[in-house]
Amino acid sequence: MKKIINDANEVVQDMLDGLIAAFPNQLKLVEGTTVVARKNAPIPNKVGIISGGGSGHEPAHAGYIGKGMLDAAIAGEVFTSPTPDQVYEAIKAVDGGAGVFMVIKNYTGDMLNFEMAAELAEADGIQVAQVIVNDDVAVEDSSFTTGRRGIAGTVFVHKIAGAKAESGATLQEVQAIAEKVVNNVRSMGMALSPCTVPASGLPSFELEENEMEIGMGIHGEPGTEKKEIASANEIAEELTNKILDDMQLNSGDEVAVMINGLGSTPEMELFIVNGKVHQILSGKGIKVYETFVGEYMTSLEMAGCSVTLLKLDEELKQLLAAESLAPAFRK
Amino acid sequence: MKKIINDANEVVQDMLDGLIAAFPNQLKLVEGTTVVARKNAPIPNKVGIISGGGSGHEPAHAGYIGKGMLDAAIAGEVFTSPTPDQVYEAIKAVDGGAGVFMVIKNYTGDMLNFEMAAELAEADGIQVAQVIVNDDVAVEDSSFTTGRRGIAGTVFVHKIAGAKAESGATLQEVQAIAEKVVNNVRSMGMALSPCTVPASGLPSFELEENEMEIGMGIHGEPGTEKKEIASANEIAEELTNKILDDMQLNSGDEVAVMINGLGSTPEMELFIVNGKVHQILSGKGIKVYETFVGEYMTSLEMAGCSVTLLKLDEELKQLLAAESLAPAFRK
Repeated sequence: MKKIINDANEVVQDMLDGLIAAFPNQLKLVEGTTVVARKNAPIPNKVGIISGGGSGHEPAHAGYIGKGMLDAAIAGEVFTSPTPDQVYEAIKAVDGGAGVFMVIKNYTGDMLNFEMAAELAEADGIQVAQVIVNDDVAVEDSSFTTGRRGIAGTVFVHKIAGAKAESGATLQEVQAIAEKVVNNVRSMGMALSPCTVPASGLPSFELEENEMEIGMGIHGEPGTEKKEIASANEIAEELTNKILDDMQLNSGDEVAVMINGLGSTPEMELFIVNGKVHQILSGKGIKVYETFVGEYMTSLEMAGCSVTLLKLDEELKQLLAAESLAPAFRK
Repeated sequence: MKKIINDANEVVQDMLDGLIAAFPNQLKLVEGTTVVARKNAPIPNKVGIISGGGSGHEPAHAGYIGKGMLDAAIAGEVFTSPTPDQVYEAIKAVDGGAGVFMVIKNYTGDMLNFEMAAELAEADGIQVAQVIVNDDVAVEDSSFTTGRRGIAGTVFVHKIAGAKAESGATLQEVQAIAEKVVNNVRSMGMALSPCTVPASGLPSFELEENEMEIGMGIHGEPGTEKKEIASANEIAEELTNKILDDMQLNSGDEVAVMINGLGSTPEMELFIVNGKVHQILSGKGIKVYETFVGEYMTSLEMAGCSVTLLKLDEELKQLLAAESLAPAFRK
């Protein structure tokens, strides 16, 4: 295991210290927690938006904190759900009196712990609502999930729910728009190589030198199949077609495209995939409103990528285009 | 070699196609070339700023094209200088009558080819000026360089020269500010693992499982030494102290910090390094004005990082803070 770390058991705290050092005017660590919040949280009368999960997916989730996106993010241990008490601290840190909205990826541990935290907060009189993101079309049920997993499409939920909250919407309105995003976003990924969780020191899965895995999860959960490495065009086709099989997209529809790198895939390769995805969509008359290429939801140093499509309407386009000052999603 | 590509000899063209597909309203490919330019280039009466070099360093250089930064970037083959005729096309594409400024990294091939292109352009009556970036303090002279190499600090030259040009400055004024940046910026890197150029299929260098290399270049050029992997704190100290030995920084001085990932280093690790770099600077009374953590100048999928410090004055701070709409450097 080759990593630039100090102590494999302290990587999350060390990372958070380095994050706050980088953005001292925008972010703060809620004392005694692994919760990162906007410096000016809570914001009176604005719905607070929180997300989070295991660490190792950077820039998710703390990189999405800022005006127009999240108010706070909870960092669990690497690939481990944050505990209910940490989520509860995040809710309290961002409640400005208009309630708190939780963006949860569909992993059993995350759901249990966020929901327990919500109960604690509701007992304090804080209104809490939530959405469960399950954009990964690869598999039904998985190592840590009943139903579909939440992956890179979650970033679009952060962006659009965040923009809605920033516009002064109510908790119910934020929930409605977040559900609209979840209903219209689909993703699928593939990997060329695994990653290694620092505390375990072992690769998350194994692949032969000529193999790739299609549909694996962002914690190395098994996908649909291991097979010989294909060309970028074939990979783009396989991922995109699986997504298109699952969502109603017609000629003339507009989408946002995200080509997400999982950690060690050169940007060059992501752009090569992007070219083919655009060709496929163009061939079907589907218009691309905006494209995002880069590392948005990683798996430490896993090599591979995911494709995400978000079907847009006028309201979603406007919220996607709204200002964001989050470090990892400046608009 | 595991890569998401179609043909190892077509990666640059495929990447450029995917890049233009991603940003069709901001970027254009100059026909028949590997030059990417702002959609609205040339801009009348603005100094045009160009940069470029071998591909494989993405988001450098095309990711820095946009209002407030570059007007065009030339993409050479992977780790190979662009040819003079391509650079000449870039100069012509961005000349709006106020001259063209070239940001060149100190590699022998780049210098020769940019300078030959400048001569061709000057014969056409286009004024051309340039700066040579040599921020890497690791070694004097290297595989492809006489003197010091240009690495991640180049991005600060793009930003600040770009902001100056956008403000309506003359070619001479742009050159003066770019030279000021070069005189005040220093970098140093380290690697845990090499990268593989697609067309060769071979790793750029070799390291044992417990080894790291200090001071290697962004094409895998040898550094100062190979030694046992140290902790993140020790790595941060070694890189930062080598930089501080080389520049005049006193208590009360202000700097910008860049912690740059070389391709496959998780952002978590970059933030861990950043925390220690801030501690070292703080211990010396050096103030950090702004911090940049991420992938700014990569080496395909090399694992490792570099640290860059830019000493600031009021003028540089103002230009660093100015608006940038470049995809990889939004401000």
